[in-house]
Amino acid sequence: MEATMRCHLLHSPLSILSSSSSSSSSTFSSSSSSRTPIISASSSFPMATTQDEAGRRKFLDFPFVSAPHKNLMLDLVSTLENRFDSQLLPCTLPPDVQHYQSQSGTAQASLQIRSGQSNSPVDFVLGSWVHSELPTGGSLDITSLSAYLNLSNDSPNFLIELIRSSPTMLVLILDLPPRKDLVLWPDDLKTFYEDTHLDKPRQDLEKIPEVQPYYSSSLYVRTVSSPTAIMVRIETPEEERMEDIIRNHLDPISKQVLGVWLDHCACAKRDVGEAERAHLKKRDGLIRGKTIEIDLGSSFPRLFGTEVANRVLDTMREYFTV
Amino acid sequence: MEATMRCHLLHSPLSILSSSSSSSSSTFSSSSSSRTPIISASSSFPMATTQDEAGRRKFLDFPFVSAPHKNLMLDLVSTLENRFDSQLLPCTLPPDVQHYQSQSGTAQASLQIRSGQSNSPVDFVLGSWVHSELPTGGSLDITSLSAYLNLSNDSPNFLIELIRSSPTMLVLILDLPPRKDLVLWPDDLKTFYEDTHLDKPRQDLEKIPEVQPYYSSSLYVRTVSSPTAIMVRIETPEEERMEDIIRNHLDPISKQVLGVWLDHCACAKRDVGEAERAHLKKRDGLIRGKTIEIDLGSSFPRLFGTEVANRVLDTMREYFTV
Repeated sequence: MEATMRCHLLHSPLSILSSSSSSSSSTFSSSSSSRTPIISASSSFPMATTQDEAGRRKFLDFPFVSAPHKNLMLDLVSTLENRFDSQLLPCTLPPDVQHYQSQSGTAQASLQIRSGQSNSPVDFVLGSWVHSELPTGGSLDITSLSAYLNLSNDSPNFLIELIRSSPTMLVLILDLPPRKDLVLWPDDLKTFYEDTHLDKPRQDLEKIPEVQPYYSSSLYVRTVSSPTAIMVRIETPEEERMEDIIRNHLDPISKQVLGVWLDHCACAKRDVGEAERAHLKKRDGLIRGKTIEIDLGSSFPRLFGTEVANRVLDTMREYFTV
Repeated sequence: MEATMRCHLLHSPLSILSSSSSSSSSTFSSSSSSRTPIISASSSFPMATTQDEAGRRKFLDFPFVSAPHKNLMLDLVSTLENRFDSQLLPCTLPPDVQHYQSQSGTAQASLQIRSGQSNSPVDFVLGSWVHSELPTGGSLDITSLSAYLNLSNDSPNFLIELIRSSPTMLVLILDLPPRKDLVLWPDDLKTFYEDTHLDKPRQDLEKIPEVQPYYSSSLYVRTVSSPTAIMVRIETPEEERMEDIIRNHLDPISKQVLGVWLDHCACAKRDVGEAERAHLKKRDGLIRGKTIEIDLGSSFPRLFGTEVANRVLDTMREYFTV
């Protein structure tokens, strides 16, 4: 049952010994009402403070998105955290980076970053939501979850982002962005993308009439994406249909892609030689730098003002350094 | 007037001296009837034989495609040949590789490869058409033109392919495939794709209601394409509308992309260092090998039988070696 194994069992048995409280760490338990997964607000790690727990609770609350959207995110967070279990340290970001808002209060956001322990292939896991009132009425809501591997594993990273600019409009980015040039490493293309049938979920989604391809205006974003990247724009006549699509299609598809990442990437035993490691370090560094600079660096100041944006981005930069 | 300059003027003035007959080489002259461009069947090079001229004539005839489709191809061939003028050697492929067919005669094809002279940034230019009767009636017609640069220039290559499986169905692949990993060389992304506004023609095409994105079933093909690659599937209710789209949209757009390639890639003065050259050599070699192996190696034997396919592919392999 590869899919249900904890990652450390496949990757580094030592991690079992390294945690002081692995048994009760952030677990996904069946909920009392509805199917909303309940994740412990505490990451059950001795170092976690009350403030950190409040930040985590705020993140897991996803207060501005619909129930199916929230369920999707919580399912992914719990699946990911369950697999890595005690390998993830609790989030220790400053409180004003775990939750921040614009001066006017029209935009607010939650951010959680959990670093992997030294024996983990995970460098860090980043979860976030952003809510911003729009001048036209309505709101922009972005929820995202990404997982970055360290240099001990040359597999792709994981990324999901849902951008909702109205109840009837959603952009989904769901991908395992490669960390090596797949032209030079065709075996990786085969291992991670062909043999795992990663194009299937993209094809399934394409069949839904409301789903259209989405082309990021940033050519850099297109360049770092994989050949099976799901980048779609969904527009529905009514909100109810959008919730149906999230529940019946985006939810299972995102779990499927995360499952591939967990089973065949993050938990794969990879042999990374010295030269490969140097290449990976350079490429990871460039991509992470551009993510801060292009992706966040352009939108954050607009949403939150320069001061808040700089505070958050400066803190994030520490994690994004390879 | 950069766009009208001959490439050798920008790149290597020595080439002016190296040609014995630059004045009358394959020129594009306004036609007596209609707007069909007339290109000399002779490549006007002393070494060209009568057999070679017959092969070239057969290629330029594009006997199985519609007038707008033929015009598009001839325009591109003439624009490309005019720019490189005397830098291109005539095609000296064996006659049974310049034109070949399946044993039953239901499939036939024309192939022209012109190598660049040693002072040219062009390694070779490849033009081809394939015609195959379909068991269901109707025919499959593929016309393509690609230009490969050598190691003195690290700019992208040029590629256009029109695949028509019925009078009302067409797949267009039009791209400047990068020769370096654009993640590691973001300056190249800016120079070749952003500053040249290469996404504009893709966006223009996207607006036509009959145009849908096309996803190659080969993930490798997707991997080697650029972030502005045009890969579309066009389906029209009637043949006439398809011809309109070819004439009014595909024709100007393909010229625009070729223009960017000529002005900003093939004729750009690039400084390629030793390390970059080694990287380029490795990557070019891998891509070309895969092109023969995956792209042609899978379809050629099916269309023409093993013996003919091997003869053609073995000859092509000599050009595709870096």
